[in-house]
Amino acid sequence: MSKVYLLLISAALYAFYKEERFMNIIKPSVLPGFMDLLPKDQLVFNKMKEIIEDNFKKFAYLPLDTPAIEKTEILLAKGGGETSKQVYNIESSSRNMSMRFDLTVPLARFVAEHYHELEFPFRRYHIGKVYRGERNQRGRFKEFYQCDIDIIGDEFLDIRNDAEIPLVIYNIFKELNFTEMTFHLNNRKLLNGFLDYHGIDNFTEVLRIIDKIAKVSEQDIKEMLSDIIPEVDKVELILQFISYKGENTDVLNYLEELKIDNDKYSEGLKELSEVYKYMRLFEIPDENICLDMSITRGLDYYTGTVYETFLDNYKSIGSVCSGGRYDDLASNYTKKSLPGIGISIGLTRLFYQLNEADLIDIPTRSVADVVIYPMADCYEYGVKVVDKLRDEGIIAQIYFEPGKFKKKLNYANKLNIPYIIILGDDELSKDEVALKDMDTGEQISVCIDEAIKIIHSNKL
Amino acid sequence: MSKVYLLLISAALYAFYKEERFMNIIKPSVLPGFMDLLPKDQLVFNKMKEIIEDNFKKFAYLPLDTPAIEKTEILLAKGGGETSKQVYNIESSSRNMSMRFDLTVPLARFVAEHYHELEFPFRRYHIGKVYRGERNQRGRFKEFYQCDIDIIGDEFLDIRNDAEIPLVIYNIFKELNFTEMTFHLNNRKLLNGFLDYHGIDNFTEVLRIIDKIAKVSEQDIKEMLSDIIPEVDKVELILQFISYKGENTDVLNYLEELKIDNDKYSEGLKELSEVYKYMRLFEIPDENICLDMSITRGLDYYTGTVYETFLDNYKSIGSVCSGGRYDDLASNYTKKSLPGIGISIGLTRLFYQLNEADLIDIPTRSVADVVIYPMADCYEYGVKVVDKLRDEGIIAQIYFEPGKFKKKLNYANKLNIPYIIILGDDELSKDEVALKDMDTGEQISVCIDEAIKIIHSNKL
Repeated sequence: MSKVYLLLISAALYAFYKEERFMNIIKPSVLPGFMDLLPKDQLVFNKMKEIIEDNFKKFAYLPLDTPAIEKTEILLAKGGGETSKQVYNIESSSRNMSMRFDLTVPLARFVAEHYHELEFPFRRYHIGKVYRGERNQRGRFKEFYQCDIDIIGDEFLDIRNDAEIPLVIYNIFKELNFTEMTFHLNNRKLLNGFLDYHGIDNFTEVLRIIDKIAKVSEQDIKEMLSDIIPEVDKVELILQFISYKGENTDVLNYLEELKIDNDKYSEGLKELSEVYKYMRLFEIPDENICLDMSITRGLDYYTGTVYETFLDNYKSIGSVCSGGRYDDLASNYTKKSLPGIGISIGLTRLFYQLNEADLIDIPTRSVADVVIYPMADCYEYGVKVVDKLRDEGIIAQIYFEPGKFKKKLNYANKLNIPYIIILGDDELSKDEVALKDMDTGEQISVCIDEAIKIIHSNKL
Repeated sequence: MSKVYLLLISAALYAFYKEERFMNIIKPSVLPGFMDLLPKDQLVFNKMKEIIEDNFKKFAYLPLDTPAIEKTEILLAKGGGETSKQVYNIESSSRNMSMRFDLTVPLARFVAEHYHELEFPFRRYHIGKVYRGERNQRGRFKEFYQCDIDIIGDEFLDIRNDAEIPLVIYNIFKELNFTEMTFHLNNRKLLNGFLDYHGIDNFTEVLRIIDKIAKVSEQDIKEMLSDIIPEVDKVELILQFISYKGENTDVLNYLEELKIDNDKYSEGLKELSEVYKYMRLFEIPDENICLDMSITRGLDYYTGTVYETFLDNYKSIGSVCSGGRYDDLASNYTKKSLPGIGISIGLTRLFYQLNEADLIDIPTRSVADVVIYPMADCYEYGVKVVDKLRDEGIIAQIYFEPGKFKKKLNYANKLNIPYIIILGDDELSKDEVALKDMDTGEQISVCIDEAIKIIHSNKL
């Protein structure tokens, strides 16, 4: 009987000890709605980011990297609305500070503040994290990367710039292996002029309804429009106008032939034609462009050209990149008139969606070209080998840890490292290396220079 | 007289109009303590960042990019202290969220959370912004980039890894054109063993005092030590120990010859010797290494190897990169023992100091290789030229804006763009371009292919 007591006491003591020892362990986890990638996904994400940044540079955009925290009064200068509810504010007794919710407001602040130190047109790219306290929802993130390019003019910005912005995006998606993508292109002045000409004056509401077109049926649009426009024929006119489909040149002809006698409309048509013409001159194929009167970007501040971009085979993902022209970027911070054109890729969401659907098809280099495993007394030789490989531009790593060889090998295997080098007494004495191709399993003994040649020849 | 009234009324009306028009202008500015770089500085900053990242990749570190906002309980798991006062908290009624203040705590959280999905030793780099509500002070920033590498072992991590970390840093500073830099290297076990052997037990306080050595005089150190250690001879012993100077092999001999019979001390000496030996094997020159018993990193959580890095000719800048070994990375989040070694470059502060002192000497490519200026009717020809140049890997920009030619030229000038191409009717008719070298002012008419050759030959 006493043995049982002893056992019980031991168990209780052990439980107490464990409790004591690990009592202070905090369960490690990220906040919901924040992306936290494992290295293999991070490598792919970074590759996408790199392709985007390289193209921004290739098209001569200057880099900007403003703080993620700004004065609240700056960020919310435009006034409340939906955005202000989503803004993360920093607790502070002395200052109102908030996290930026996009990269456009900081750009406006920057250009207004440094107006005299910048050259115009000011072409800048910015890839950075922005923050929005969105409702928890699959595929929506509270911290996400935006990749923006904008061209800001001083008082004036030539309309041809609106044609170059899509070219940058076209190049990016081509490099991401999505050649089947379409720019849906419109000009807000067209619809505004059209509505004005037909005596319909609740522009904003109409635009907001049309903006829903990708998500609801035409019948729904019709009903919503009827709610705010009593005349049935006018609703029909709008529906006809926004749903016209055809070759791009047909669309332009159609818009011309409507003979809408309205200045805004004429201006919009002239601009749209010019943007389309120059997009073609910039060698964006015609099948990648779709003049589309239903694109309005209803809730935004755009005043002319508007774009949405869809991947032809994965339209359900929605627009992967959108933007447009605004007459006045920084009117809250300066009296200078600063018209601009810009576009933005929401990289975090794009990556998430493409990755979930297993659509990412870009070659990503492994973290290393080769791992070197020195046996017991060959560490110094191992360092000599890794030094030499690195001198030759090979990404090499030396594995110093003890343990069974199988476990060591597993490391290179799991990380998809294409080669390993094993160094034992034999190799040391002959000044050779045992090079193993992890794909084929083939292992050969060669001199270091030969190993370098082989590893180089198989690199991405 | 009535004219004067009219003038006054006009003036009043104008003033009223101006007031009305610009009443809502908010002065654009960043929060104090946040860095906001102009493009020309941003280009240099980015170049430095790129050199750092390229080297991290070259040495086979995996990328990580955790959220900038984490659960407050995670960030402050280690408990209050100075750090917690500097942490930026996010206003939220439902959750405690804060901005990360370094990249090590997020790494610990990540490794503990994803332990089963990672391969060990886990080598990761992370370049990201961190946030600290520091007192406003010149050269101190509340948002700053840290560039970290760490190697995390599972239960064990070979000491030779401690020698590879400085190799990465050495390569980075070499590429940044600072070859005259010195790693000050120590091992905490040495000083701890030394103090233990001499019966001095207030380790932490002693370490904290010694950590001040770069900033105060030896006399000050002596006085501070005397305040906590009553025995004069013991203070002297410490001072002698930490101030011993000599060739690195002399230092090791000195430490050996002290014949301190203490396990911690012996272990520390063995580790320091091994790290030094392998740093030399990794071909870090001896003159770039300084075994230095005064390096303690007093306030940190290091348990073995510690590093500080100084630029020999600019010691006043302080340590530009520091780090060390810790026995247990993530004890707050897991019961697994995860020893690690890491180092960190505080890029924002480093850039600021080097830039202020005009010490940055790395070639930075201009935003564009060439700007194309088409005259009145040559826009389409201009697009053809820019397309062709881009196809050949040239960073080319076409300037669409109207205005005086002098103003246009000024754009390329101010942005240090090396070439411009002018396209007029003459060039159009001959299918040529007028290529102007902005350095020499020389202008020649050549075919496009010839222009491409010339621009290529002069690129960085």
